[in-house]
Amino acid sequence: TIGVAAPAWAASADPLPSWNSGAAKDSIIEFVDNVTDPESGQYLPPAKRIATFDNDGTLWSEKPLYFQFYFALDRLKAMAPEHPEWQTTEPFASYLAGDVDKMVAHGEEGVLKVVAATHAGQTTEEFRQAAEQWLKTARHGSTGKLFTEMAFQPMLELLDYLRESDFKTFIVSGGGVDFIRSFAEEVYGIPPYQVVGSSIKATYEVRDGKPVMVKQPEIAFVDDKEGKPVGIHQYIGARPVLAFGNSDGDYQMLDWVTSGEGPSLGLLLHHTDPLREWSYDRKSLVGTLDRGLDDAGEKGWVLVDMKQDWNSVYPVKPADPA
Amino acid sequence: TIGVAAPAWAASADPLPSWNSGAAKDSIIEFVDNVTDPESGQYLPPAKRIATFDNDGTLWSEKPLYFQFYFALDRLKAMAPEHPEWQTTEPFASYLAGDVDKMVAHGEEGVLKVVAATHAGQTTEEFRQAAEQWLKTARHGSTGKLFTEMAFQPMLELLDYLRESDFKTFIVSGGGVDFIRSFAEEVYGIPPYQVVGSSIKATYEVRDGKPVMVKQPEIAFVDDKEGKPVGIHQYIGARPVLAFGNSDGDYQMLDWVTSGEGPSLGLLLHHTDPLREWSYDRKSLVGTLDRGLDDAGEKGWVLVDMKQDWNSVYPVKPADPA
Ligand SMILES: [Ca+2]
Ligand SMILES: [Ca+2]
Repeated sequence: TIGVAAPAWAASADPLPSWNSGAAKDSIIEFVDNVTDPESGQYLPPAKRIATFDNDGTLWSEKPLYFQFYFALDRLKAMAPEHPEWQTTEPFASYLAGDVDKMVAHGEEGVLKVVAATHAGQTTEEFRQAAEQWLKTARHGSTGKLFTEMAFQPMLELLDYLRESDFKTFIVSGGGVDFIRSFAEEVYGIPPYQVVGSSIKATYEVRDGKPVMVKQPEIAFVDDKEGKPVGIHQYIGARPVLAFGNSDGDYQMLDWVTSGEGPSLGLLLHHTDPLREWSYDRKSLVGTLDRGLDDAGEKGWVLVDMKQDWNSVYPVKPADPA
Repeated sequence: TIGVAAPAWAASADPLPSWNSGAAKDSIIEFVDNVTDPESGQYLPPAKRIATFDNDGTLWSEKPLYFQFYFALDRLKAMAPEHPEWQTTEPFASYLAGDVDKMVAHGEEGVLKVVAATHAGQTTEEFRQAAEQWLKTARHGSTGKLFTEMAFQPMLELLDYLRESDFKTFIVSGGGVDFIRSFAEEVYGIPPYQVVGSSIKATYEVRDGKPVMVKQPEIAFVDDKEGKPVGIHQYIGARPVLAFGNSDGDYQMLDWVTSGEGPSLGLLLHHTDPLREWSYDRKSLVGTLDRGLDDAGEKGWVLVDMKQDWNSVYPVKPADPA
């Protein structure tokens, strides 16, 4: 508090304290200032302030495998004794063999197939309880954290900042929509009806005089690549003005969002931090970022460099009182 | 203002001035009071306050035919010379012949088929502009009103009242989702991402280097009957606590909503007013209300009697200044 230190009000007024000063942070704040300022010439009424976020690798980590893999895998292992045919059918065989490369090669569609096979017959409420229970107890192999503790602190701040600026924040993810909905409100402050994702089919049945929704062993929608703008059209029904992703699976979403008339902002999180998180891009099977890296400059998309741009990665839990 | 007249504050405090006193109005106000009062034992946090409304016959009129019929029909007629095969293919032939009974018998799925055939190849933005333009000029045959002027004043008040009580209001309609989205925000105050409806397929394409979403001649989802709880699950991802419909197409939605744990309210609008609107129920092809009438009592659903319960039907336009 001596000399040139920033005054206290400046620190407390920073809406993104986990973001370091630099081009990425500036681009976000400048965009929000412009679209919320009626005098800027770039003003957008609140109804137009729609922001979409990829989930895996954008709002939380995705290494070594998408977190939903582990959920599906735990259930697959539990059910495997009753399903000998899984030993010789893909993607089940690779999952049960623990062949990480092959599991990853099956992608989010592989997860969906496992979810479809292992959760078929469950009601949507049973599925939700199973997902909630799993998320309360399962821990990440290398960090030892609950998976929900691996949401990114800078992204949580960004979601809050946008909502305080009258944006509606949506998730648009290749992951299973019901899985994400089971924690999105608590972890991200995003209600279930603002989550767009991949899905398996569900049907309406009356059991013992009571209606239930029952999951079916059939993929209904894959919300990845071209599926992302399709999902945005179908669920949101308006073109967002901000999109944030981390892989080539987000390319079409960013392209769609930043091709509209009027102001828009596309961002890609580049995982560059092997010490605090992971470092990967073009060659990674999970979260491949290749074409997006090539084209970001030309498209005007902002690359967020995790190592440079973030001063913290995961939320710090308050220490237990001694 | 003499004697026993209600004091001015009471009149101005009435959130539903177009609703007459009676069981229907009481049930709504009592429900909202209970779920918003932390002391009531029926309290619901705002995140749980989700209300779903059917559109045709619930939020606006639907006679003699669903209004989207006329939109589809106008376009069908314009395109018919290039499609001689429509003269002998259903549902097109009935539409072009103006055979109302047969058009109605094809139901909302028939409309969707016509929309699919006549709007395929259009971008989603072209479709929206066409719908907006049509709604600005086309008028209802017998009332002479713009179709959007046939939204029900008591329902507009109810939507406002619920939102002021921290409800999120959704449309869940058998009608085409993009058609409804083209006017729902302006007329009902419901944003596009809170509209669930039937849809035709759309695909993502890059035309001249620019991404577009293109409508396809294929039905993607029929949001009617069992489709309504399926659509609610898919789009909203949570069980609503209030549902308002007017026909047997809403039966499953009401059953789903009122079968959850905790407080809920199901309502059915009964069209009983041949002078101010229309009178129809069991035998009507549009908006058939038969099983719902039989079961409402046992299910605890509230029947709203248009003639008895509403003191106005359509919004009164302010007179032009003389
Ligand atoms: Ca991702
Ligand atoms: Ca209806």
